[in-house]
Amino acid sequence: MKTDIQIAQEAKLDPIVEVAKSLGMSGDELELFGKYKAKISDAYLEKIAARPDGKLILVTAINPTPAGEGKTTTSVGLGQAFGKLGKRAVIALREPSLGPCFGIKGGAAGGGYAQVVPMEDLNLHFTGDFHAITSANNLLAAILDNHIQQGNELGIDTRQVVWKRCLDMNDRVLRNVVVGLGAKADGTVREDHFVITVASEIMAVLCLACDLKDLKDRLGRMVVAYNDQGDPVTAADLNAVGAMAALLKDAMKPNLIQTLEHTPALVHGGPFANIAHGCNSLRATKAALKMADYVVTEAGFGADLGAEKFFDIKCRIGGLKPDAVVLVATIRALKYNGGVPKTELNKENLSALKAGIVNLEKHMENLQKYGVPVVVTLNSFVTDTEEEVAYVKQFCEKRGCAFALSQVWEKGGEGGIALANVVLDTLEKKESSFRVLYEDTLSLEEKIEKVAGEIYGAEGVHYSAQAKTQLQRLEKLGFGNLPVCMAKTQYSLSDNPALLGRPEHFKMDVREVYVSAGAGFVVVLTGAVMTMPGLPKKPVAFSIDVNEDGVITGLF
Amino acid sequence: MKTDIQIAQEAKLDPIVEVAKSLGMSGDELELFGKYKAKISDAYLEKIAARPDGKLILVTAINPTPAGEGKTTTSVGLGQAFGKLGKRAVIALREPSLGPCFGIKGGAAGGGYAQVVPMEDLNLHFTGDFHAITSANNLLAAILDNHIQQGNELGIDTRQVVWKRCLDMNDRVLRNVVVGLGAKADGTVREDHFVITVASEIMAVLCLACDLKDLKDRLGRMVVAYNDQGDPVTAADLNAVGAMAALLKDAMKPNLIQTLEHTPALVHGGPFANIAHGCNSLRATKAALKMADYVVTEAGFGADLGAEKFFDIKCRIGGLKPDAVVLVATIRALKYNGGVPKTELNKENLSALKAGIVNLEKHMENLQKYGVPVVVTLNSFVTDTEEEVAYVKQFCEKRGCAFALSQVWEKGGEGGIALANVVLDTLEKKESSFRVLYEDTLSLEEKIEKVAGEIYGAEGVHYSAQAKTQLQRLEKLGFGNLPVCMAKTQYSLSDNPALLGRPEHFKMDVREVYVSAGAGFVVVLTGAVMTMPGLPKKPVAFSIDVNEDGVITGLF
Repeated sequence: MKTDIQIAQEAKLDPIVEVAKSLGMSGDELELFGKYKAKISDAYLEKIAARPDGKLILVTAINPTPAGEGKTTTSVGLGQAFGKLGKRAVIALREPSLGPCFGIKGGAAGGGYAQVVPMEDLNLHFTGDFHAITSANNLLAAILDNHIQQGNELGIDTRQVVWKRCLDMNDRVLRNVVVGLGAKADGTVREDHFVITVASEIMAVLCLACDLKDLKDRLGRMVVAYNDQGDPVTAADLNAVGAMAALLKDAMKPNLIQTLEHTPALVHGGPFANIAHGCNSLRATKAALKMADYVVTEAGFGADLGAEKFFDIKCRIGGLKPDAVVLVATIRALKYNGGVPKTELNKENLSALKAGIVNLEKHMENLQKYGVPVVVTLNSFVTDTEEEVAYVKQFCEKRGCAFALSQVWEKGGEGGIALANVVLDTLEKKESSFRVLYEDTLSLEEKIEKVAGEIYGAEGVHYSAQAKTQLQRLEKLGFGNLPVCMAKTQYSLSDNPALLGRPEHFKMDVREVYVSAGAGFVVVLTGAVMTMPGLPKKPVAFSIDVNEDGVITGLF
Repeated sequence: MKTDIQIAQEAKLDPIVEVAKSLGMSGDELELFGKYKAKISDAYLEKIAARPDGKLILVTAINPTPAGEGKTTTSVGLGQAFGKLGKRAVIALREPSLGPCFGIKGGAAGGGYAQVVPMEDLNLHFTGDFHAITSANNLLAAILDNHIQQGNELGIDTRQVVWKRCLDMNDRVLRNVVVGLGAKADGTVREDHFVITVASEIMAVLCLACDLKDLKDRLGRMVVAYNDQGDPVTAADLNAVGAMAALLKDAMKPNLIQTLEHTPALVHGGPFANIAHGCNSLRATKAALKMADYVVTEAGFGADLGAEKFFDIKCRIGGLKPDAVVLVATIRALKYNGGVPKTELNKENLSALKAGIVNLEKHMENLQKYGVPVVVTLNSFVTDTEEEVAYVKQFCEKRGCAFALSQVWEKGGEGGIALANVVLDTLEKKESSFRVLYEDTLSLEEKIEKVAGEIYGAEGVHYSAQAKTQLQRLEKLGFGNLPVCMAKTQYSLSDNPALLGRPEHFKMDVREVYVSAGAGFVVVLTGAVMTMPGLPKKPVAFSIDVNEDGVITGLF
């Protein structure tokens, strides 16, 4: 069997100008990065701004399991299938983070015959967007520490610096550091922390900003520290906004690449799905809606985190109205939720399937709360039996959700035609009456409790003393009207990763709360959240190589 | 008077494919980065490999003073002047470092009407080469600390880790840090240091590697630490080479941009001129020699550091044979060397000029030791008087050096025609008999003493006890055959920045010695060397901005 990178390298790509031409774009409206990548010019975005929007389809999934779900693969395959059906479709995806490519996870370009390409470029530096974010993030940090060094006119409390440095690297020793050691000229000593670039607030800001002006406004609002009086100090106070925006100017432009079947894909931005909202940039989604009749996009992790944030943060801020949701599951993952160990998933097991399908059921119910028609799809494996598939199908249809099998990993767009047809049928027959889960006017605690209760199924929320104080402070500082961004384990609907299926009768613990004032949400931490991953004993990096002709191997 | 960025932004650029076409390149041989930047494909480099070389002209300068010399401006202007004369010329320059653009120094794209463009792109992310180096550098650091965390099979002595993390940022608090604080999962605590990206050994490696295979060999040889037995641990020992090379694959390709007058410019790589060799990549210089009849290139700092390393490191390793050297001076800088304070430089002062010209004299003598014909040029200012210029002219000609005035800052290529004609005349009439200053077979101490004595004019070298031990160790480890890379103040021919003119009767102090085994030289530190700059009280960053149309201001 071929590896993903082999399939990707064997693919015959169209020049990206040809892909753009299929959307009616001229070469002048692109900024090329080699032959197969491009950024879309601001001039083109302005030109298409008045066009009507296409249909917006969100791909999300059940809670991730070690069995694998294939959300990006499904998104890519569905886009390819629309192409096969002669529909004008564009896929909007997140850019992968560089760090994890060298760790355990590998890249994120889809899989099998449903990939976006060139996959090596995408997984490595791509068009430099993340490097620009790293630079802007660290410029702000340098300006902050320089402000302290040069007299600290703003009275920054060095124990209350909340801005962290970042690198797009899995580097655990940078989680907790002490900076500023040495002599007087080497700065002031303080504790500091590095996060991975996708966890920088600038990533979230870039992905929610609608234009350069909005970008600068958001950058300026970012809270970097508190002063001796406990008042927030912002990036604007440090006079860092213009230089950061100059660094981010090109990173604001959506990137165009293609699938293995030449479907256009806008791949742009990639905020964490825990401490941020986990979906590609608003600009890319909005551009895609103007460029195509059908836009397939995805959100990080399972629907409890990804779809909730897509709806309650991204759609709220951007005024988007999704027309349908595709909810991805696998028979294997459902059986895993039903208690079958990873090694036994190849065997038919209807009772485990019935026990585990409650996870899918809860996500279906949740998505329906947003008023958006739901299509469930099974990313099929050769080990799935007819009976198992039939059971899932009737389970979904009984609950008002359409159903389709997907074989895009194995067959590309051809394998997604059944799904594409069901989606088209749904779009035609069912009107979306999209609504967000909660209003801005609710208090932060009410918002947290609404998400915990209605989406996670919690029977109440327990706040740590610290979180209580922080919530009061944030309400007092005027951040109470912001949506909440929940940082929770992705492996369970609850805040306990061990609780599979559909956990009930649990309380959710809120440990810490802080504001991302530039992004425009309040982050709510339940349990420990890793914002700087580490490398495993044998990282993927060990197997990556490039030969004398520049051909990369070992990346996945 | 217009600022550099205004002049650059008002320029009408040719599409880079047109610039390439003027060299006989087809669009297919380029990898475009937008309309005005491109990387040159490996296929093209292979295609031209058998062509004869053009003439290689090095631009260097007297010791830098606060008065400013304009070395890059002269390089660009000379290239433009060759164009005016209908000659096929290419300029090969270093890429500017991002960090200093936000500090005091600003960018490095030439000045006035002798600039390479687009200057904003060049000074900010350009084609991502430096970001790739940052990533590779920090991947190696992460793999190193992960090796320690996962059991430390190689027995790395955590007190003898010599590999440093890097960022392309002026950030003084990162000079001395402690990493690995926190819990067991957060790594091992040790002292660490960040350098600016241009000081990473990978920058030097990239600039000296002739192809991907050589790159990997050099990366593998880099010493990252010593083990408990005191033996070197290399990047190859850590199994980090393939992944680093994959990150650097595209950064190995020379970048093509243009001057304000559409002269092709290969701008590629930019190692520090103190702890590294301070010139653009060998690949870019070699490519330029195949692409043009005249190649203008430059080296960092004054000729004592820049030209010496260009000859003794880059030309030695790359087998280059320079045909002429242009030595840049200004009347103002010579008067400053003669003891005139910065505020008084606008007044004619022949006696100060005569006192200060000894600096120029020493550089002329030094360059002649390499057997390369020397052309001295004065980068002219309106305050220069006829008598002053005439004095310098006869001074140079009396010593066997040709002379020409340059007015490229004000007039572009037109202002460099006199200089270009003198260079052409020199190339025609004087054969270069280039030779390096010392043979590989000398001991490290002999090499150091040769450079100190013959180039700096020192009357001997004093080694610290530490340096003595380190030299012995390096000889023992088999690094004695490498050339030396001197890290010395750029402001004086001596190792004391206060000694202007032509210092005599001084001894040079060698404080520390270490090997850059991948780059292939032994770094010799005299005095303190700053490898991570800081920001001033009012950094340039404060004035940088970008408007809603994406136009950047305040960068210089």
